[in-house]
Amino acid sequence: MRHGYFDTERDEYVIDRVDTPASWTNYLGVNDYCAILNQTGGGYSFYRSAERGRVTRFRANGLPQDYPGHWLYLRDDDDGDYWSATWQPIGKPLDQARHRVRHGLSYSVFECRYADIEVSQRVLVPLGDPVELWDVTVTNRSERPRRLSLFGYVEFSFHSIQIDNQNLQMSLYAAGSSQAAGVIEYDFHYEPWTYHYFAGPPNLAGFDCRREAFVGDYRSEANPVAVERGACSGSAGTTGNHCGGLQHRVELASGESRRLVYLLGHGDRAAGITARAKYTPEGVDQAAAQLRAYWADKQSRLKVATPSWAMTALTNAWTLLQLETCVVWSRFASFVEVGGRTGLGYRDTAQDAMAAAHSHPDKVRQRLWELLRGQMSAGYGLHLFDPLLFQENRRPEAPAGVRLPTVLPESAADQLHGLQDACSDDHLWLVGAVVAYLKETGDLAFLDQVVPFADSDPEGDSGS
Amino acid sequence: MRHGYFDTERDEYVIDRVDTPASWTNYLGVNDYCAILNQTGGGYSFYRSAERGRVTRFRANGLPQDYPGHWLYLRDDDDGDYWSATWQPIGKPLDQARHRVRHGLSYSVFECRYADIEVSQRVLVPLGDPVELWDVTVTNRSERPRRLSLFGYVEFSFHSIQIDNQNLQMSLYAAGSSQAAGVIEYDFHYEPWTYHYFAGPPNLAGFDCRREAFVGDYRSEANPVAVERGACSGSAGTTGNHCGGLQHRVELASGESRRLVYLLGHGDRAAGITARAKYTPEGVDQAAAQLRAYWADKQSRLKVATPSWAMTALTNAWTLLQLETCVVWSRFASFVEVGGRTGLGYRDTAQDAMAAAHSHPDKVRQRLWELLRGQMSAGYGLHLFDPLLFQENRRPEAPAGVRLPTVLPESAADQLHGLQDACSDDHLWLVGAVVAYLKETGDLAFLDQVVPFADSDPEGDSGS
Repeated sequence: MRHGYFDTERDEYVIDRVDTPASWTNYLGVNDYCAILNQTGGGYSFYRSAERGRVTRFRANGLPQDYPGHWLYLRDDDDGDYWSATWQPIGKPLDQARHRVRHGLSYSVFECRYADIEVSQRVLVPLGDPVELWDVTVTNRSERPRRLSLFGYVEFSFHSIQIDNQNLQMSLYAAGSSQAAGVIEYDFHYEPWTYHYFAGPPNLAGFDCRREAFVGDYRSEANPVAVERGACSGSAGTTGNHCGGLQHRVELASGESRRLVYLLGHGDRAAGITARAKYTPEGVDQAAAQLRAYWADKQSRLKVATPSWAMTALTNAWTLLQLETCVVWSRFASFVEVGGRTGLGYRDTAQDAMAAAHSHPDKVRQRLWELLRGQMSAGYGLHLFDPLLFQENRRPEAPAGVRLPTVLPESAADQLHGLQDACSDDHLWLVGAVVAYLKETGDLAFLDQVVPFADSDPEGDSGS
Repeated sequence: MRHGYFDTERDEYVIDRVDTPASWTNYLGVNDYCAILNQTGGGYSFYRSAERGRVTRFRANGLPQDYPGHWLYLRDDDDGDYWSATWQPIGKPLDQARHRVRHGLSYSVFECRYADIEVSQRVLVPLGDPVELWDVTVTNRSERPRRLSLFGYVEFSFHSIQIDNQNLQMSLYAAGSSQAAGVIEYDFHYEPWTYHYFAGPPNLAGFDCRREAFVGDYRSEANPVAVERGACSGSAGTTGNHCGGLQHRVELASGESRRLVYLLGHGDRAAGITARAKYTPEGVDQAAAQLRAYWADKQSRLKVATPSWAMTALTNAWTLLQLETCVVWSRFASFVEVGGRTGLGYRDTAQDAMAAAHSHPDKVRQRLWELLRGQMSAGYGLHLFDPLLFQENRRPEAPAGVRLPTVLPESAADQLHGLQDACSDDHLWLVGAVVAYLKETGDLAFLDQVVPFADSDPEGDSGS
């Protein structure tokens, strides 16, 4: 069965039948903020670490699959019918709602036409800021004026996803949220220096910061009470689960369009206000152009032309995207690996580094240094380790002297499992990876570094 | 708002308005098997350990709340309408479906009347076997004959719930299921000596062992495709998620009743077949009578009569039930603490032990010994620890020489956190608890034991 096709002109994979048998995901963001979204808008985002820097929550292996997500609801305020810009969570029958998804290089566009309303939700993460932008355009294709409510919705997460299984009770007491100036700020008190925000366009019509209030008892994201009722309740406060739920009313004459920008970011309310001022529709277009240039530069490093259009398309765009995703975010953030084990796989990372030396030499150099640092003096590599292990302050945002929550690895001993977890070939991949990097970059000075073994005194130059 | 009342004659809490603002749970099982179910049939069960002996899966803090559960679907095979014996997961409007729940001492009864069909699902765990029994009676209260399909449904879990967040990808490859003789057997290959089963009455009309096949893509337990279609697909095999999905067809004349027994158990198919032969309707009644006698004996140890009916009822039944639940299962299995941290809380357990010395002296003696064993030579108690730590073979079912999966604590060092986690009053509670036990039982020989410190040589008699 055909669910989509490659658009080689625009370097997009276009899914025009969205009920795919498995999640079709895209990775957005190439620096500090990463959003992983599938073709139904399901997924999550994190800041730097999928395990400890979680921004939104995900219920891996749940039912319905791939919930929750970064979702925009639409409601016809004349007849009360409601749907979503992405197929899920409302899931209107696909013979009534036309959905199309375009997964591109660091952006995805979710398009829907239902009840003579067209909506497009373009999601991207700009190069310069840890924020996810939803560039929404809604158009009235009917012959009559329409009155709509739009509800942007995300579910905030505890920062460490381990908490979803552990110490949940106390952690539910330790989260809070508030709305001011149209920006919802989420604050998890175990790390009172970390905030996340969700903001939308001006003229807020209503909001909910509490998941329980937005969704309602014995309901799910598929029938949230705030959307069904057509009105948020203004909930906020401390304890429980928190969400960004923002309601805006839009009146559209026949044929009229409106463009609205939503922002989901790492930072406090002030950061949200600053980002909102920067990312006007024009600011979003500028960010999109910068992302295009970023990828065009990478694509220019290696271009092939082969008799097979598929081979050409894969090499020039899609394999590059996969490689860059792996070398930037490692392989432990996805729809099945959602942060519970995080950091670097020794072999995986060496393989990723080999293949991306031409497109991302700085990141490859960093990864090679981390792999060398993760080698034990006995010779083997730490099969799975977090490079933060080797930083003096493993939580750069934390003020000095703050006692770290116990969900963070407090001691290197936690991860120096010894031979038990080692695989005999882990460290061997280093050789090929370093050679590939040197041949591609000519950076022979790399060889002059002295990198301590994982089990060495951090002050010393070499292992014991 | 009133949601229910105490029935002091039958020692039951009766919930006649089931959309309670929070979960109303009951704990079934007093030996090795524990089921925790709420008033909508949501919840989970485990064998011995909520963390490592999980039988069914639970998605704590999920949406809709309290999913999944131990559920029985009913379908009218003439018009295709379907509902559930418990309010969830179908959630018919409460003005159309009458639901009532009776939480008793080690049993719960879920009653429903919808579309002139009455169904009662009594759930209990017998004293002698690690199996959960569903004693189902379905009655046709309409004037015409009815053709129904019944679908029993549970979702099997990885044995260690940590896997739900960790190494999920590989673990999905390592689970398998099959059906024979009407018994679904679930096998998680990380522990190939452990099985769980789900069995029903004779004359199986269909089955699904794969969750994906029973529920269907982009669906949930609220609209499983097998129930909607009225036919299971016979799925089974290795990899993915597994469920017990059993379909039986029942034809009832006007006024006719049928009684059916389902069994969810720890053990392989042969154990399921043995249990099914034992727990006929008469066997179930016998097990229920034994449970009544078990509780009557406990209740007889302390009976009060006070001018306040509430004080009397709480003391003679409900507080006793809470205490027994705490001292048997500790406090880390619930709807918010689902196993991610397990074992004994030092203070909690000392407090539980104090209060249950009259009703459960053997268990209290065991708990006190474990608390003493969890004391460090420096004086403090291990704030949260698993007594399995001190057993030579921490997985008694594992054949000798089997390498334990790394999700199990392999070394005592993992849990001997030292002073970091200690609370200054932990060990002080021991004094009061031991005194309470001695005063209640007169078991002065308890004082003659030599219990090693947690950090002592296990071969030695005392701490370092």
